[in-house]
Amino acid sequence: MPAGVRIDASPEQLANVTFDANGLVAAIAQDVETREVLMMAWMNAESLRRTFDEGRMVYWSRSRQELWRKGDTSGDRQYVREAFYDCDGDTLLFLVEQEGAGACHTGARTCFFRAFGEAPS
Amino acid sequence: MPAGVRIDASPEQLANVTFDANGLVAAIAQDVETREVLMMAWMNAESLRRTFDEGRMVYWSRSRQELWRKGDTSGDRQYVREAFYDCDGDTLLFLVEQEGAGACHTGARTCFFRAFGEAPS
Repeated sequence: MPAGVRIDASPEQLANVTFDANGLVAAIAQDVETREVLMMAWMNAESLRRTFDEGRMVYWSRSRQELWRKGDTSGDRQYVREAFYDCDGDTLLFLVEQEGAGACHTGARTCFFRAFGEAPS
Repeated sequence: MPAGVRIDASPEQLANVTFDANGLVAAIAQDVETREVLMMAWMNAESLRRTFDEGRMVYWSRSRQELWRKGDTSGDRQYVREAFYDCDGDTLLFLVEQEGAGACHTGARTCFFRAFGEAPS
């Protein structure tokens, strides 16, 4: 069974996170092995704290307006391996181990399964 | 010199792009070779159209409220190789060839150069 890594973010690191007017920060999940970008969703301060504490991706669902512990319903949990913040602190990048079929609610491995233009040969 | 690929997005594909209340969609740039996530920024309809037409990443600068042809000033252009949209159409993923030192205005290769917690050994 996969296991996540608890992230001990320092106060200085956390102070670099910039939440938007809705109290949210963008969070990208990337597969730690294949390096596929799996999805992008949002976190508020509470979901970020839980993600670090549990070593599992916990987003904020904007549509449901509630904490979204990824995989609690679907089984497609995401276990945190590494976490980064960008130069202006408004986007986070998580390297994760993706459990189950994939990240996408459609059953696809990644939410970015549709290409613009003609499919590459 | 790197060259971008013109993306011929179909009307059906474009209709899947969901712009937010500010007319913006999130755009992730990933290095086509190293698979590093380089940055996340925003596009409006005009910058998306130009990105597809020119095969170069053209964002919308929220701070400057203007089109931002990535690299016009810095030289750090991003050439488009493939483009994807996610399951709910509110985030785009571009595989790019990154020219110059890197994607970040700090000179770093990726904007996600700072890790939470202790640096991995």
